[in-house]
Amino acid sequence: MKEHQGGFTLPGEAGYEQLTLEMARKWGADVIRDSDGTKLSPEIVEAGYRIYSTICIIREHNAFAEAHPECQQQTFLSSDPVTALSDTLEIRPLDGYFTEQFELNDSPEGLACWQVWDRTQDCLVEKDNWTYRDGVIRVTNAQPYHRYTASVLCWRIWEEINMYNHTTNHWTTEHLRQLDPRHPLAWAYLQDWLKKWCEDNPDTNVVRLTSLFYNFVWIFGSDARRRTRFVDWASYDFTVSPAALKAFEETYGYALTAEDFIHKGWLQATHRVPTENKRKYMDMIQHFVAEKAKVLVDIIHSYGKQAYVFYDDSWVGMEPYGPCFSKVGFDGLIKCVFSGFECRLCAGVDVPVHEIRFHPYLFPVGLGGLPTFSEGGHPEKDAMDYWLHVRRALVRQRVDRIGLGGYLHLTIGQDAFNDAIEEMAVSFRKLWNLHEEGAPAELPVTVGVLHSWGSLRSWTLSGHFHETDGNILIHLNEALSGLPVSVRFLSFEDVVNGALDGIDVLINAGREGDAWSGGSVWRKPELVTAVTKFVHEGGVFIGAGEPTAAEGGDTRLAMAHVLGVDLDRGEYACHNAWEFEEDADIPVHIVPEAVPVTRGIRLTAPETRVLLSENGVPKMTLHAFGKGKAVYLGGFVYSPGAARMLLELLTCLTGTDGTAAGCCESTDVECGWFPASRTLVVMNNAEHAVSTRVRTPEGEKTVDLEPLEMRFLSE
Amino acid sequence: MKEHQGGFTLPGEAGYEQLTLEMARKWGADVIRDSDGTKLSPEIVEAGYRIYSTICIIREHNAFAEAHPECQQQTFLSSDPVTALSDTLEIRPLDGYFTEQFELNDSPEGLACWQVWDRTQDCLVEKDNWTYRDGVIRVTNAQPYHRYTASVLCWRIWEEINMYNHTTNHWTTEHLRQLDPRHPLAWAYLQDWLKKWCEDNPDTNVVRLTSLFYNFVWIFGSDARRRTRFVDWASYDFTVSPAALKAFEETYGYALTAEDFIHKGWLQATHRVPTENKRKYMDMIQHFVAEKAKVLVDIIHSYGKQAYVFYDDSWVGMEPYGPCFSKVGFDGLIKCVFSGFECRLCAGVDVPVHEIRFHPYLFPVGLGGLPTFSEGGHPEKDAMDYWLHVRRALVRQRVDRIGLGGYLHLTIGQDAFNDAIEEMAVSFRKLWNLHEEGAPAELPVTVGVLHSWGSLRSWTLSGHFHETDGNILIHLNEALSGLPVSVRFLSFEDVVNGALDGIDVLINAGREGDAWSGGSVWRKPELVTAVTKFVHEGGVFIGAGEPTAAEGGDTRLAMAHVLGVDLDRGEYACHNAWEFEEDADIPVHIVPEAVPVTRGIRLTAPETRVLLSENGVPKMTLHAFGKGKAVYLGGFVYSPGAARMLLELLTCLTGTDGTAAGCCESTDVECGWFPASRTLVVMNNAEHAVSTRVRTPEGEKTVDLEPLEMRFLSE
Repeated sequence: MKEHQGGFTLPGEAGYEQLTLEMARKWGADVIRDSDGTKLSPEIVEAGYRIYSTICIIREHNAFAEAHPECQQQTFLSSDPVTALSDTLEIRPLDGYFTEQFELNDSPEGLACWQVWDRTQDCLVEKDNWTYRDGVIRVTNAQPYHRYTASVLCWRIWEEINMYNHTTNHWTTEHLRQLDPRHPLAWAYLQDWLKKWCEDNPDTNVVRLTSLFYNFVWIFGSDARRRTRFVDWASYDFTVSPAALKAFEETYGYALTAEDFIHKGWLQATHRVPTENKRKYMDMIQHFVAEKAKVLVDIIHSYGKQAYVFYDDSWVGMEPYGPCFSKVGFDGLIKCVFSGFECRLCAGVDVPVHEIRFHPYLFPVGLGGLPTFSEGGHPEKDAMDYWLHVRRALVRQRVDRIGLGGYLHLTIGQDAFNDAIEEMAVSFRKLWNLHEEGAPAELPVTVGVLHSWGSLRSWTLSGHFHETDGNILIHLNEALSGLPVSVRFLSFEDVVNGALDGIDVLINAGREGDAWSGGSVWRKPELVTAVTKFVHEGGVFIGAGEPTAAEGGDTRLAMAHVLGVDLDRGEYACHNAWEFEEDADIPVHIVPEAVPVTRGIRLTAPETRVLLSENGVPKMTLHAFGKGKAVYLGGFVYSPGAARMLLELLTCLTGTDGTAAGCCESTDVECGWFPASRTLVVMNNAEHAVSTRVRTPEGEKTVDLEPLEMRFLSE
Repeated sequence: MKEHQGGFTLPGEAGYEQLTLEMARKWGADVIRDSDGTKLSPEIVEAGYRIYSTICIIREHNAFAEAHPECQQQTFLSSDPVTALSDTLEIRPLDGYFTEQFELNDSPEGLACWQVWDRTQDCLVEKDNWTYRDGVIRVTNAQPYHRYTASVLCWRIWEEINMYNHTTNHWTTEHLRQLDPRHPLAWAYLQDWLKKWCEDNPDTNVVRLTSLFYNFVWIFGSDARRRTRFVDWASYDFTVSPAALKAFEETYGYALTAEDFIHKGWLQATHRVPTENKRKYMDMIQHFVAEKAKVLVDIIHSYGKQAYVFYDDSWVGMEPYGPCFSKVGFDGLIKCVFSGFECRLCAGVDVPVHEIRFHPYLFPVGLGGLPTFSEGGHPEKDAMDYWLHVRRALVRQRVDRIGLGGYLHLTIGQDAFNDAIEEMAVSFRKLWNLHEEGAPAELPVTVGVLHSWGSLRSWTLSGHFHETDGNILIHLNEALSGLPVSVRFLSFEDVVNGALDGIDVLINAGREGDAWSGGSVWRKPELVTAVTKFVHEGGVFIGAGEPTAAEGGDTRLAMAHVLGVDLDRGEYACHNAWEFEEDADIPVHIVPEAVPVTRGIRLTAPETRVLLSENGVPKMTLHAFGKGKAVYLGGFVYSPGAARMLLELLTCLTGTDGTAAGCCESTDVECGWFPASRTLVVMNNAEHAVSTRVRTPEGEKTVDLEPLEMRFLSE
């Protein structure tokens, strides 16, 4: 790839033909795409660039949806609880929900799925004891002062991304509906529509599918004080329908009910340990989505076009690390990225082309509602913030393309932003070329990240960093995304089945009962035994937050005997704690602010070394166990310094000399060493100039770096 | 009672006869007592004062104990877990324990009670798979990498209070042993010994039993970094023996095992929800203790002496609010007090004489190890600190006597302390006289404090304030001890059985799973329904910390629907919270620092009013429910201001006019109004002078108070 051209996707804009071509030259684009709601004009299409065209396959078929409302998508919802004051009560199931999004499915088929629950008694109300009419459920033979809920099936009558844009950006256009490909009528219609589309768009080289069929779960409320009631980027609630339930029953021989989705009203967020039924249901949906997606991809291929899929919005069921993704036949995967872990997520997928779309989106305001390309915005700063996260991941693994999205005309007058993107594009291409010449050096350290989802949720938890940053693990994943180590994502089942072979460091990070820590799985002796053996024989275990926490054992942390610390949820009442003194004498640059405290942590053994504590609570400890070691971290907050601390922990605990991958004396600087090219890539994470010595297998040198500079040093 | 004499128990000291008589005059003593380790000389005994003599009945019989070691007291202990590295392992059960306190009971009868556990598998190891010899348990057929523990029966060979004094104060005298009255030999011996003692001490008017038979649980470790492994002032572990286990089996028809006590190694602290077996065992011990105590009291009475019991140290099984206390026939109860709640505990007991012993103890250092009557000490300040807590409780309920303990000679030169005590004694007598003339005015507000123990643990949790101050409830009890309201302590069973009749305000305060919050009892529909009905019909519910918290429901706080807040332990992942603004417009002086935040609290309803929040987390809320109201408090830290806030909450929420009991405009001032005497008792809690208006049913007046002053104003 030339340094100044290629691997760059530009969002073209009709009416700004000159600008489009000018910016394509500046940024070295080889592809021009349309964005949501924009169409490219002939001047652009015919300028010699490859053309991506965006399709959201299930959306923009309002006429069909109105003619066939039974083809629309659905979901289960639970009413808010109603307290019975006598032996009868009324429930209006959609009270509190956004009725522009939901409509009761009170067809006979829909009603058959409804349930009414006595949540106080935790039991189902018999169907004899409730009736439904005109939006109201009437319960008889109720227990006074018990609380009742109704689980109802609803049509989703507003496609959620369109709804979000309407409500956030005050759009006034028609509300777009969405079709469920599980309905035979809809499925036949969508295939025909796609064929016609391909015929109508001969200039398009790549059909850019804005994901596939089912949106991530996004449930709006009626009250502006809680407009979003629930949002989970990785849950499957929006795939449900009587037909899907029937398919489940046919597949597994038993039926799911509303409660499998409603789950006492909690729903089943991705951050929670999935039930066995949820896993089975997801598996079924994944196969369904892949099967249908393959048909669409085949249609696209039949028109001589390529099919790239954008992994966002209505992506549900097509996890790139799921069992079916590679069977679909996509030609490329596009991932929008704010963070390093998203780059790695994209880069590691089994698909020919890996493309990332940078942020900020060319839009007046960003996702958080703050200005970007409007008064008060600093898009060049935003771009640099994201780039600092992304570039260190790009050093570790090759990504094939980069790009932008949105309205190109917003770049007019944004010279600082435009120059920054140009510079990033050059750096990206240099990195791509280095990767082509040979992989960067990696330390002989394999890290296993252990949680309920295993490889299915490689790198990501559920959505972007800023949506999940209350979880410790996403901070660790972000740190790992730029470190010169090998990373695998393991499920608990994997570990029991021998997946610790070849692992040097095992990480478990989360809060008690969440999917990342693991919950009650830690009461399984075979799991505890496998991890105990792993450490005793020389492995390293890093637990963060409330790792391995489960109720019912003789310690709250199942690995307390290995970690040398336990979590007190009250059971230690009257048990005195070990006194300790801090002892941070290890070759690691410890960053106290990167390690928050977890309340209730206490030593279980006098030999546990406390590396860091806060108000008497240990927050970073080291405990030897057999030939292995365990480190406890109260938490982990990503920063370049925190990533450096993690790297040093990994090398120090495994006894690895980091020189092979390049060592920077300054903790502000990271580097990548490409042995085949004999090229050192040095990144200054500091906003001030830094001079540092860097050690590689080829020797040591001193490098002077500008603030935030990325420098390529060839011998 | 005269203002300057009576109701005062002075610790006399041999060798300081002149001082004893002089201080008796200064402080208006009518009783002189000996203290631990001191004996009164004839000059004192014959000076015309009533004489208390202290007996710790089970201690100071070392010759007998050595001749009959099988009469000593015992306990179960669990070894620390040992990880198996092959299919055999060795456990040395007392490793980590203080071997001056414990000795294995490896007699056939003792060994029969031992157990070995696979804690990883959570199962008992069959007796075929372990053997014991010379202090070592050898396990065969072990599972590699499982953790094993041994539960062993041990002799307790050092009486714990004596052990504490030795280790803390470097005593070098002989270690005292203790006898178990359950052993027939010991029991016969103790009765004879007491008779002889009564014969030998004709001058003694009151035998002051330093409690009875069984010490609270205090388990020492071998390592100075954790000298106390476990200490619980209200647990029964030290009452156990093969004979006690046999008695249980005879009473209930089934046997307890070591695990009923060891409980996976956690033991069963009073702060934890008791098992049904623990409750039954406690009941049996209470009856045993009362039965034996009655025999001793009868002996004392037969010599024309009175029997007072000091409620501390080896008090286990004689709870003053237990079912058996009043049957023993004690003539008086003596309670050492640091706090107001301890005064109320004493004052409310069904016994003829209620006496409190003030702190500080006349000892060179205090309980925390800081100097009191030695270089650097300020005993007069310590005394005033405790007095500020105590006096407000004394205003609420009559106590009959006060006193001091320790070595009187330490008061030499402590004029400030001596004067302070004199002044307190005068105030105490004034209060006693006021109570005699007629009860203080009380507001028509009855508060029910709801927890697992109910009335058995009225006012106290487990020990003194400073030992349990990590629990929210003790702070609330301390506040309530000085408020002009009626207080009842209710168990969950009481509530289900109708005990909410007559309750105006119900309080539940604790952490999830602890005895004070209640744990899984909150999954019982009948309990939830009773409290829901109570509030809906007009009652007030105050929940503090993690009230009514239990896993497994559709809310974490069982009363979330009433409180308007819930606790997020992760289940609310992806559920957005209600936005709120603070709204503290209620007639209560809110003290922000008195209400700590509980992490994870969130609104469940938009109408919940947030009175106070911290970093976006609600920490004080108000929610209307039916005709009633509920207040949530993230926590509660006692201070006079916090007590005032609680009083105002009680009156505001119940719509009560506080004038009947006296209202002080200044929040620094508390008062009591004695209608029969038309006397107002005003207390300045501030360390500065305060001028305040005070409103009573007789009108309003302005009072000027010196710092910390207590003033009696009669019309």
